Amino acid sequence: MLSTTPYYAVIFTSKLQDLSEEDLLLYAKLSDRMVELAAEQDGYLGVDSARNEVGITVSYWRDLESIKEWKTNSEHTMARNQRKLFYKHYNTRIAVVEREYEFGLI
Amino acid sequence: MLSTTPYYAVIFTSKLQDLSEEDLLLYAKLSDRMVELAAEQDGYLGVDSARNEVGITVSYWRDLESIKEWKTNSEHTMARNQRKLFYKHYNTRIAVVEREYEFGLI
Repeated sequence: MLSTTPYYAVIFTSKLQDLSEEDLLLYAKLSDRMVELAAEQDGYLGVDSARNEVGITVSYWRDLESIKEWKTNSEHTMARNQRKLFYKHYNTRIAVVEREYEFGLI
Repeated sequence: MLSTTPYYAVIFTSKLQDLSEEDLLLYAKLSDRMVELAAEQDGYLGVDSARNEVGITVSYWRDLESIKEWKTNSEHTMARNQRKLFYKHYNTRIAVVEREYEFGLI
């Protein structure tokens, strides 16, 4: 995906707590639902996600307004309020993408 | 890590080719070396990295100048010139981090 710069990236990094299998499943379900829900928002441009020791989810947005709207989405707010049940650490960075280079096909 | 905003993030996402075990080892070695080398650069603030289907490496930098210096580092340039041997796709985004929120301890 190449979008016209400038646009926004939300860089979310996290470390999970030692979760039971049940809680891990619940977490995975909630995460998948948030990705699905984000994709329906106005201004959503895409997402990249990977997890090893650290989880990284970078979502891309047209502008700050669309990030704010996504933040106030009620289902997203409910999910965010449960974050401390799953994470022992997380960090959210709001960044403006100024330049982008790409090689190859997705 | 909480750094004083604004600072820069380089968001590198990639998909690997179907590599032989030998090439995968070579790739891992080269990646580890680049992380080690980046950490020695002036203006380096940190890095987050994870890989599943997609690999995401976000490195954080004090300013654009330190990113440019890192880009012209000779060992890094040699490694970058070999990228197409390993990746079928990659994308580099240069972004300015405007805000940052954190919960918990690393």
